[in-house]
Amino acid sequence: MQQFDAIWINANIATMNDNGVPYGAIEKGVLAVKDGLIAFVGRRDELPEFDVMATPVHDMQGQWLLPGFIDCHTHLIYAGNRANEFEMRLNGASYQQVAASGGGINATVAATRAASHQELFVLAKDRLNTLLAQGVTTVEIKSGYGLDFASEQKILEVAAELDAHHPVNVTKTFLGAHALPAEYANNADGYIDAVCQMLPGLHAAKLVDAVDVFCEGIGFSVNQCRKVFATARALGLPVKAHAEQLSNLGGSSLVAEFAGLSADHIEFLDEAGVAAMAKAGTVAVLLPGAYYFLRETQLPPIKLLRQYQVPIAVATDLNPGTSPLCSLPLMLNMACTLFRLTPEEALLGVTRHGAAALGLKDRGVLSIGMRADFACYAISQPAELCYQFGENQLKQLIIQGKPVRL
Amino acid sequence: MQQFDAIWINANIATMNDNGVPYGAIEKGVLAVKDGLIAFVGRRDELPEFDVMATPVHDMQGQWLLPGFIDCHTHLIYAGNRANEFEMRLNGASYQQVAASGGGINATVAATRAASHQELFVLAKDRLNTLLAQGVTTVEIKSGYGLDFASEQKILEVAAELDAHHPVNVTKTFLGAHALPAEYANNADGYIDAVCQMLPGLHAAKLVDAVDVFCEGIGFSVNQCRKVFATARALGLPVKAHAEQLSNLGGSSLVAEFAGLSADHIEFLDEAGVAAMAKAGTVAVLLPGAYYFLRETQLPPIKLLRQYQVPIAVATDLNPGTSPLCSLPLMLNMACTLFRLTPEEALLGVTRHGAAALGLKDRGVLSIGMRADFACYAISQPAELCYQFGENQLKQLIIQGKPVRL
Ligand SMILES: [Zn+2]
Ligand SMILES: [Zn+2]
Repeated sequence: MQQFDAIWINANIATMNDNGVPYGAIEKGVLAVKDGLIAFVGRRDELPEFDVMATPVHDMQGQWLLPGFIDCHTHLIYAGNRANEFEMRLNGASYQQVAASGGGINATVAATRAASHQELFVLAKDRLNTLLAQGVTTVEIKSGYGLDFASEQKILEVAAELDAHHPVNVTKTFLGAHALPAEYANNADGYIDAVCQMLPGLHAAKLVDAVDVFCEGIGFSVNQCRKVFATARALGLPVKAHAEQLSNLGGSSLVAEFAGLSADHIEFLDEAGVAAMAKAGTVAVLLPGAYYFLRETQLPPIKLLRQYQVPIAVATDLNPGTSPLCSLPLMLNMACTLFRLTPEEALLGVTRHGAAALGLKDRGVLSIGMRADFACYAISQPAELCYQFGENQLKQLIIQGKPVRL
Repeated sequence: MQQFDAIWINANIATMNDNGVPYGAIEKGVLAVKDGLIAFVGRRDELPEFDVMATPVHDMQGQWLLPGFIDCHTHLIYAGNRANEFEMRLNGASYQQVAASGGGINATVAATRAASHQELFVLAKDRLNTLLAQGVTTVEIKSGYGLDFASEQKILEVAAELDAHHPVNVTKTFLGAHALPAEYANNADGYIDAVCQMLPGLHAAKLVDAVDVFCEGIGFSVNQCRKVFATARALGLPVKAHAEQLSNLGGSSLVAEFAGLSADHIEFLDEAGVAAMAKAGTVAVLLPGAYYFLRETQLPPIKLLRQYQVPIAVATDLNPGTSPLCSLPLMLNMACTLFRLTPEEALLGVTRHGAAALGLKDRGVLSIGMRADFACYAISQPAELCYQFGENQLKQLIIQGKPVRL
């Protein structure tokens, strides 16, 4: 007789596995957990015998189970907000006027540097709570508003503390090469050297799960990003990039060259870049919130990504400058509405492919041995999670086998 | 000594009055209520003497008060959803294939006709609860998925029951001329006659606060809408229209001719139409959710509306076909991001001008004698409510002077 900690029955289960059925669906299925992992998922008649008297059984009455959502690209640790420049611009101020008033990313860097660890923790915790209430169970958080060793360390320490004390699982990405701090004006190469020097210390303190760069004309060049990647790989750290958002510099191919996890944004990616990503197994992370908020018109190369079978993830890019949108369900709707992903592609983007973008092999699908991170929705088909927005259909959220209070 | 039921102090108050200050703001102000109405709003030193021992005082500690939001255009009473056709289209199905599979508005009409009063009530109540949690205190609800007397009556009765039993205040709009039901295929004139015949009975049952039409090539002609408006006005009912959404037929001028409340959508409205609305005092209701969801590219004539000083309202258009977006805060963000309204214009659109669009003179601004419908937000400036989306900054919601459980 098999031992389970709890069982969910009469559930329509979108396993998100590649089993030949849309959404990897199992209708009227059963899911059982043991020690925080999925111990069984399948049809009722395949369920091994178990101690009926000792095992809590949840009757889902036909509701749907999906893997906990994964937001694989956020910048959610920051202080201040940029409502002021948002309003200035809508009132007709020029970029020069906004910059002169202290707007832009430097405003966020200044506020984040000035904030204490505790202040940043409280701000970020509220954002994580908002994501949790949407069914999100894993969140990647980038540094990049510190831009000096102590401030980058502070941000990554807050991320580590959130991981330890918040039900959501947090992965930590070092994004020192996010923007050029004022101290290094006109000396991007010097700053890149400083970034490379920050890495060993942060890595030794176990604060870095991956290394990211902003590869763009207004960010850093391919050669500068290459230096950061080489330093990261020498430490055994995986890499990724903000790439091809505003122009086709070749950042995605650089990620592929380093067998990186993901290239993110990629509106301007060309076929050679798509092919390179496919060959390297690099995930394409689409960020429809930034596309929407910046009113971009260049669509990412969805057809090519499909043709080359590059896995597509979808994330919030939650940040105060270009995507102040703390909602992964909204990104599902925008991925379908603006990028014309199918609902299945969008949902894969926040489950199986979101996990792949973070290099996590223990989640993102519902199958035996995976983390028991899953959500129960009062819907009649998974597409509803992409089609409608606003009403929260999430009824129950389980992390490592335990219900979370919503 | 003046009697108050409760007082809010140390509040930054966005009265939304036209007092020469952005947002009609009063910094570090006081708001007092008595018998469900605002009895005082102003500076602390202007507050009359009151019984300090007997009056509950809420210290807002610098948080912001705004009028309860008004969603002046929704179709939120319906059964079924259209996730299926959303998914079909994204998987490449043609409009013909979607129609052949029973999609489109007829699917919603069939589901809504088949649903009981109680079923519709439960579905609509959940949507109203979602809006309430966003700070919405008044919602307009249209019929228009019944398209026969009994079904239209059922929808309006559900709206009346929601108004009676839900904390949100509901106004009821008869939209019989929403679409042509199958029974009247190729006989739009015959159906318009039927709509006109429905009106006296519904009006006598006190189920109609206003009369709406869908004036469009795929809806009803100006002449057909004129018939409905004439019938409505003869009963003393105010009129409005879905107009100029896909083409410039002249529906907005028709509304103006009947001194109507609002013309809604109006992407294709021309200067003559704007001028007519300005002269008639007709409100322009912008629906950025439908614009977004349909991926429209024709922007409403914002500059002309400003130039002619036509009041601009903003609403969700919540409906299962073209705006399945149950979020007025998202519309604030979209009105700014997509339509380039200023945050102040957007917030006026869901307060003072939202009230005007419904002909309601007792709400939408915070001043003495108005309904005490207001919300308290943990923000440092009103623009934050438009700039960011996702985190709910609503801390307290008061309807007719009483706190509502969120
Ligand atoms: Zn980013
Ligand atoms: Zn409408």
